[in-house]
Amino acid sequence: MATPPPAWPRRLLPLSLGLFQGALLLFFALFVTYGEPSAQKEEANLVAKQVYSIFPFFQDIQVMLVVGLGLLLTFLPRYGLSALTHNFLLLNFSTQWALVLQGLLHHFHHGQVHLDLRNLLTAEFAAVTVVISVGAVLGRTSPFQLLVVAACEVPVYLASEWAIVTQLGVLDVGGTITIHVFSCYFGLGVSKALFGAARWTVHPKETPTPLSDLLSLVGTLILWVFWPSFVAVLCQPGDAQHRAILNTILAMSASAVTTVVASSLTERDGKLSPSHLQNGSLAGGVAIGAVADMALPPVAALALGSLSAAACVLGFRFLTPLLARKLALQDQCGIHNLHGLPGILGAAASAVAVLVTPEDTS
Amino acid sequence: MATPPPAWPRRLLPLSLGLFQGALLLFFALFVTYGEPSAQKEEANLVAKQVYSIFPFFQDIQVMLVVGLGLLLTFLPRYGLSALTHNFLLLNFSTQWALVLQGLLHHFHHGQVHLDLRNLLTAEFAAVTVVISVGAVLGRTSPFQLLVVAACEVPVYLASEWAIVTQLGVLDVGGTITIHVFSCYFGLGVSKALFGAARWTVHPKETPTPLSDLLSLVGTLILWVFWPSFVAVLCQPGDAQHRAILNTILAMSASAVTTVVASSLTERDGKLSPSHLQNGSLAGGVAIGAVADMALPPVAALALGSLSAAACVLGFRFLTPLLARKLALQDQCGIHNLHGLPGILGAAASAVAVLVTPEDTS
Amino acid sequence: MATPPPAWPRRLLPLSLGLFQGALLLFFALFVTYGEPSAQKEEANLVAKQVYSIFPFFQDIQVMLVVGLGLLLTFLPRYGLSALTHNFLLLNFSTQWALVLQGLLHHFHHGQVHLDLRNLLTAEFAAVTVVISVGAVLGRTSPFQLLVVAACEVPVYLASEWAIVTQLGVLDVGGTITIHVFSCYFGLGVSKALFGAARWTVHPKETPTPLSDLLSLVGTLILWVFWPSFVAVLCQPGDAQHRAILNTILAMSASAVTTVVASSLTERDGKLSPSHLQNGSLAGGVAIGAVADMALPPVAALALGSLSAAACVLGFRFLTPLLARKLALQDQCGIHNLHGLPGILGAAASAVAVLVTPEDTS
Repeated sequence: MATPPPAWPRRLLPLSLGLFQGALLLFFALFVTYGEPSAQKEEANLVAKQVYSIFPFFQDIQVMLVVGLGLLLTFLPRYGLSALTHNFLLLNFSTQWALVLQGLLHHFHHGQVHLDLRNLLTAEFAAVTVVISVGAVLGRTSPFQLLVVAACEVPVYLASEWAIVTQLGVLDVGGTITIHVFSCYFGLGVSKALFGAARWTVHPKETPTPLSDLLSLVGTLILWVFWPSFVAVLCQPGDAQHRAILNTILAMSASAVTTVVASSLTERDGKLSPSHLQNGSLAGGVAIGAVADMALPPVAALALGSLSAAACVLGFRFLTPLLARKLALQDQCGIHNLHGLPGILGAAASAVAVLVTPEDTS
Repeated sequence: MATPPPAWPRRLLPLSLGLFQGALLLFFALFVTYGEPSAQKEEANLVAKQVYSIFPFFQDIQVMLVVGLGLLLTFLPRYGLSALTHNFLLLNFSTQWALVLQGLLHHFHHGQVHLDLRNLLTAEFAAVTVVISVGAVLGRTSPFQLLVVAACEVPVYLASEWAIVTQLGVLDVGGTITIHVFSCYFGLGVSKALFGAARWTVHPKETPTPLSDLLSLVGTLILWVFWPSFVAVLCQPGDAQHRAILNTILAMSASAVTTVVASSLTERDGKLSPSHLQNGSLAGGVAIGAVADMALPPVAALALGSLSAAACVLGFRFLTPLLARKLALQDQCGIHNLHGLPGILGAAASAVAVLVTPEDTS
Repeated sequence: MATPPPAWPRRLLPLSLGLFQGALLLFFALFVTYGEPSAQKEEANLVAKQVYSIFPFFQDIQVMLVVGLGLLLTFLPRYGLSALTHNFLLLNFSTQWALVLQGLLHHFHHGQVHLDLRNLLTAEFAAVTVVISVGAVLGRTSPFQLLVVAACEVPVYLASEWAIVTQLGVLDVGGTITIHVFSCYFGLGVSKALFGAARWTVHPKETPTPLSDLLSLVGTLILWVFWPSFVAVLCQPGDAQHRAILNTILAMSASAVTTVVASSLTERDGKLSPSHLQNGSLAGGVAIGAVADMALPPVAALALGSLSAAACVLGFRFLTPLLARKLALQDQCGIHNLHGLPGILGAAASAVAVLVTPEDTS
């Protein structure tokens, strides 16, 4: 699978993808409708209110995933255009695939599937796991291989999300465990499965240039700005959502500053490493997801943000080289440092918060 | 007009534009006011509610036009900065010009003109037609020539929009016919008028580089993300607006995937063409405008998105070279593939939908 | 201070910043909480409504400052990545520092500090003054020097804002005087203090390239699009906020067109100067802040936008070289042209408006 033969696989991508689009059309034709239009004026007002309350968040999340994450992945100069394209393709394919799987599950229990913005959003969350995971193998796979990864990961995510949230009752409004930790280890597994014990140089095509690092940092900044919407979109409107927004802003602000401190201390010449900035600044957003809407004091969000940024930078500096040396584990984007370590910190913080807090306030 | 003499036309741009700004100030001083401030608290709440319900959409559309479309046009490396600048200038000039014309028409019927966000929005829609049209002659005209095109196109658009929507009663909430089809053929006419039978090479300055294609694709992605706001902003709040948003998202997601399929099948080496991605991904948004708020099943939006993306890619591959060869028709950005063909498909879909649907539900 | 020794200062940045993060955590642990969760459903609805009414504006402003302003500062090609990074660091540090100072002031008067989106926003406004001021010394200072500037500027801003708004009762909803004029002259003072009478060439590292000018212009366009949110966020919801949005859009549209006129007339070859476009297009937004929510006729906003753009372009063409020659005053980004001159025009317009208007309507 790692080195596809040069002749027939060219057609593999369009044919499989075309087949999938056909199946999608068939599935939608048979099972999916919009809800009945509201008969009364009050219902119509309610729909309008719901649209206004979720749509701006939805757009923010779209910008994050399509533009922000796409740009973040362009740090390999000669692979930039492909990275942006593959990210866009994977987001769309995975969201459609998640809609089909969610729809099938729903159909068996309740009949006709009613599509709304909330369904689309949860399908998009499934797609997020795919685009995070494939960061581990950035620039080393064909688009067809990426589609195979997506086809496998989405159902596994849906099952694990169901197990963690519905069965175990874990609170995880921002997807720290269900999205970030899950997709990190899934992605590392994919990397191991595809490349086994092969030891490649860290960046196969070439090293980042100042310009590619700049564009990638712009992607980080877009993600950084809109992350509160990602964490808060599914919160209970009112205090819980307000708290989730504030906690995320505090955690990410602490991350940004702590990343500079940690990067400057660990780099030999005291300069800032672009990859530390590109990733560490976002670590607080990954970690805060599990506890964002809980009634914690603001200092907890700041501390969690600082701690996870420090873990992320130390991970880049010491853990990634170690894993590559000892386990021959390739992690091109450092997803273990951005999604793994901060995700585990966030999960631990969530456990502590649940133990400490006497009862849930939402 | 195609090859201006080198001496006096340098002053033509600032003098004519300065004159226009003076006339604009005069017109506003004489005729334009804001509405009277609301006397009662309930009215003030109503205004606040209207602002909150239209302003986020308005901002999304501004980002699309100023940043997204501007970047999309930067694919010619040495013309990138000019393309961004000219797009910005044309948007502002055309919006102001449309405000004057709309205001004059209104003034003759109702007296004083009250400016609000909705007026600004409809004026901006007139400006959209201009920036689409001039894509046909990208990089081949002076700014002054572009202003002349804008000065001519805005009144023609206003007349045609009045004829199509007010007189013929055509439903076209997303501007598929009134904006996209209109501006496509207007732009092709401009190209023919300016360059006649002259056969130029496809890209006069130079060919796109990976970096210029990347920046252009970022523009596409910004347009892709915010397109639902463009289609839905003028819909009836409630179910119709919700449907318009969902239909647009579905159509554009299908476009993105189908573009990859079609581009990969039609390119000899199976690689994806950047210009296909930059345009095909948006084809569904162009086509869906005419039917977005109708009570169609979701599968119709997916099918329309797929179909228009396929038409767009095939247009780039076969129709554009054919038109250039047979008719000596220059279309630099391929506006016929992105706005013409998908627009016609959308208009056809609208006709079918009106015939099939027994009555309008909104 | 201008030429730091090469050995120990490497550790100065992380150590001082790390110390500050520790102090911030301590301060938050001792004094800062979120407000009590609302006990009743109506209160919860009220909180939700407040969040929805301020959060979209807040996000727009974040995009402006983090992405827009960051990109605008990347016009020096070899300093682009640093400019983006330093802007991001300064925004976060200054916001946190302003939260501490605001909190201390509040604590002495009212006890516990309740953090909400509005506090964060006013702290961010303090940070804006810092990132404007350091534009005067862009590319010539170490990050540690920038932090020292920020540490000094934030308390001075808070004091001056209190004096101007609370004591003198000046109306300045968009921060024309309190933010733009203040930070301009503070920044010029910093430049003078750091570099004294040293006469450097205008761009120490290198001159802008078409690509760096393009990225910088993208930053301008992002600022241009979202500026209405910056001006209107703290307005009274309803008519005043609606007017503030409309006035800002009108002023900035006039600025964009007038910049082209003025730049084209003053440049010898009639071409447009990228730095004129990058700055002049925003001049109207700076000037309108002081009067945006007042009951002025729309023509006043247009005129103010045109006038301030003309002043900005003329400032770049004639005043900046003059100041550099006569006073040895270095102003790398031309903050005097973008924030000083238009700010003074806006303040003058505000004085005229207050004298002319018989009574305030809001």
